[in-house]
Amino acid sequence: MQQTHKFITYGSVTSPRGFTASGIAAGLKYSGKPDMGLIFSEVPAKVSGAFTTCVFAAAPVQVCKQRVLENESARAVIINSGNANACTGNPGLDAAHEMCSYTAEKLGIRAEDVLVSSTGRIGVQLPMDTIKSGIDKAVAARSSEGGNDLAQAIMTTDTVPKSAAVEVELSNGKVTIGAAVKGSGMIDPYMQVPHATMLCYITTDAGLEKKQLDDMLYSGINQSFNRITIDGDMSTNDTTIIMANGVSGVQVQDKDAAVFSAALQALMQQLAREMVIDGEGATKFVEVNISNAATEADARCLAEAIGNSLLCKTAWFGNDPNWGRLVAALGYSGVKFDPDLVDVCYDDMPVVSKGGDAGTPEEELAEVLKKSDFKVNVNMNAGSAGYWIWTCDISYEYVKINAEYHT
Amino acid sequence: MQQTHKFITYGSVTSPRGFTASGIAAGLKYSGKPDMGLIFSEVPAKVSGAFTTCVFAAAPVQVCKQRVLENESARAVIINSGNANACTGNPGLDAAHEMCSYTAEKLGIRAEDVLVSSTGRIGVQLPMDTIKSGIDKAVAARSSEGGNDLAQAIMTTDTVPKSAAVEVELSNGKVTIGAAVKGSGMIDPYMQVPHATMLCYITTDAGLEKKQLDDMLYSGINQSFNRITIDGDMSTNDTTIIMANGVSGVQVQDKDAAVFSAALQALMQQLAREMVIDGEGATKFVEVNISNAATEADARCLAEAIGNSLLCKTAWFGNDPNWGRLVAALGYSGVKFDPDLVDVCYDDMPVVSKGGDAGTPEEELAEVLKKSDFKVNVNMNAGSAGYWIWTCDISYEYVKINAEYHT
Repeated sequence: MQQTHKFITYGSVTSPRGFTASGIAAGLKYSGKPDMGLIFSEVPAKVSGAFTTCVFAAAPVQVCKQRVLENESARAVIINSGNANACTGNPGLDAAHEMCSYTAEKLGIRAEDVLVSSTGRIGVQLPMDTIKSGIDKAVAARSSEGGNDLAQAIMTTDTVPKSAAVEVELSNGKVTIGAAVKGSGMIDPYMQVPHATMLCYITTDAGLEKKQLDDMLYSGINQSFNRITIDGDMSTNDTTIIMANGVSGVQVQDKDAAVFSAALQALMQQLAREMVIDGEGATKFVEVNISNAATEADARCLAEAIGNSLLCKTAWFGNDPNWGRLVAALGYSGVKFDPDLVDVCYDDMPVVSKGGDAGTPEEELAEVLKKSDFKVNVNMNAGSAGYWIWTCDISYEYVKINAEYHT
Repeated sequence: MQQTHKFITYGSVTSPRGFTASGIAAGLKYSGKPDMGLIFSEVPAKVSGAFTTCVFAAAPVQVCKQRVLENESARAVIINSGNANACTGNPGLDAAHEMCSYTAEKLGIRAEDVLVSSTGRIGVQLPMDTIKSGIDKAVAARSSEGGNDLAQAIMTTDTVPKSAAVEVELSNGKVTIGAAVKGSGMIDPYMQVPHATMLCYITTDAGLEKKQLDDMLYSGINQSFNRITIDGDMSTNDTTIIMANGVSGVQVQDKDAAVFSAALQALMQQLAREMVIDGEGATKFVEVNISNAATEADARCLAEAIGNSLLCKTAWFGNDPNWGRLVAALGYSGVKFDPDLVDVCYDDMPVVSKGGDAGTPEEELAEVLKKSDFKVNVNMNAGSAGYWIWTCDISYEYVKINAEYHT
């Protein structure tokens, strides 16, 4: 397929027409950094979403999930960082509802048109006075340039805000898709639908039906956020929301669906990649690529065994081409295969050949591992199915961040 | 059941009568530390074993497994550290066989009565000249006091040798069980039958039938090595072997089986505990204890989700009572349960009550986490099944060891 989308410099959730956003400091974070954000659509936007499968789904996830399932459209998302409003019982649910209704009142819209997210410390009730004055500020501050402020306000252990937008040429005109994500720890694949302490908000001025939006969102997630793993943990608050307000006047027709979907996927992959690069303490971005497996399920299982192996991840951190840990991870993955057929390369450098040492000198292999971005290519020689994931190394800094992080 | 076993000070695999052992430096390790060991029974001993389920099972595991399955008895085990003889193809298999036949020749016994283990670097062929001169030394050095030397010789990243022995009073006399283990990384439960870069050799002078031995070994593993996790990785070389030579003259009768089995289990638990305490970089021993789950499978799944969570393990290292990570791990375990029924205590200190904050001041909770040995007690209030596992924290030292470890 010809590439008909291009990334917009400094693109964000406010790049598409008809969206405003803001990010302000309400006082939830001790640091005084921005901790509340708002995304608002001038007109009702078709909505779809995907949420954590964690049994302890946070109160805002419960509220948001129900609205996205029951309603065709939404107008706004109110978000706070610094407090996850998770494991907070009925008072927490009431607080999530109140965040929506108070935001709706200030925006002059219906409460059921407001979605809500929270991220941060688990098990602490939201300070509603602080939240409400934050909503006042967020509503007042929203602007068509506010997308990058929003991306700032949703950060927790992220070191950089993560926003992007793409323009797409469709047969009947140009549309824009923007997005903001946050997440750098508690990241694991299987957002069927999402996990990970990740929040993702996608806006577009294209017109789409809810069914189209659902399909494109899930397929995009399966090609992006479902394929990244930082620490194998999953969170109580993961949320991905997409809003399509149609303000461009361009409706996505069936013949353009593939082009639009490819652009959405490229945007989500870009942000997924940025999340891994910004992974807690990560110094290396690693693509694990399994090819010629018997089935895609096998390939996924093998890729995830390597991507979640602490021993592989610490070896990468140490520039150690120790392929024994790779084959051990393949071997314990639960997948049945013939070990004597397995070939592995670091980038294009052979490391394992027919299940044994490929003979490349260790120094040459170590050169690949010293790069900040490399591939582990595993050829199972057992079929024609493949799967790839993106992961990172585990460093001292990861331990430091997670041993010392108290919101 | 009345406890009728007691631990022997400085007990080892040579505490039971009729066994000799040795540990010597053959020159496989660059450090010059002991790297080969031998266990020898004066008379044929009934044998049972359990091995890694990794697809890349090392050559010695393949040889050993077949012998243990096909033969009722064995006489000796020859072991080397510093080289795993894994992913070494047919030359590796030949080398494993040659280790057995050369050892047999030197001991004047049949090759099929010799078992073999290797641990260390994967993917490198064994230097057979070094191995053979090591076997010469190991055969010459064996003595009835050699058990602790053996435990030294099988170490890799272990910081201390791990040996123990118990005496058991049976109705017709006293018998002794001794054991040596090694393993401090690549440790994960599910040795159905074993995993983990763990090697375990158990000797007893009791007389047992092979069937009894099989049953008791598997049941002991399920109550010990299957319940420990250090880093969630599993190895190509895991092996547990038990040899019963009957030299005490005491046959284990049916009426004594439970007493003997309890003693064996206590010995295995002691060594499993020592492995976790000696876990790579571990500073804390943590028992995760799930009670009142709907099923034992649920309880196990919940316990393992916490025990393998990097976020929980780094929080413990940081003395951080952050229970959000605990409930997140329970929530993503895949087990269905009502989150509003869950209670959690650190030791006896309530931390989560009915799925929310139990109200214990954080400083008091942190006092529990500062201990080098504490329990995470989770009451699901959903049934009557339970499961426990032993795990440890993840420290800077873990990353250091695994980023910098090259055998």
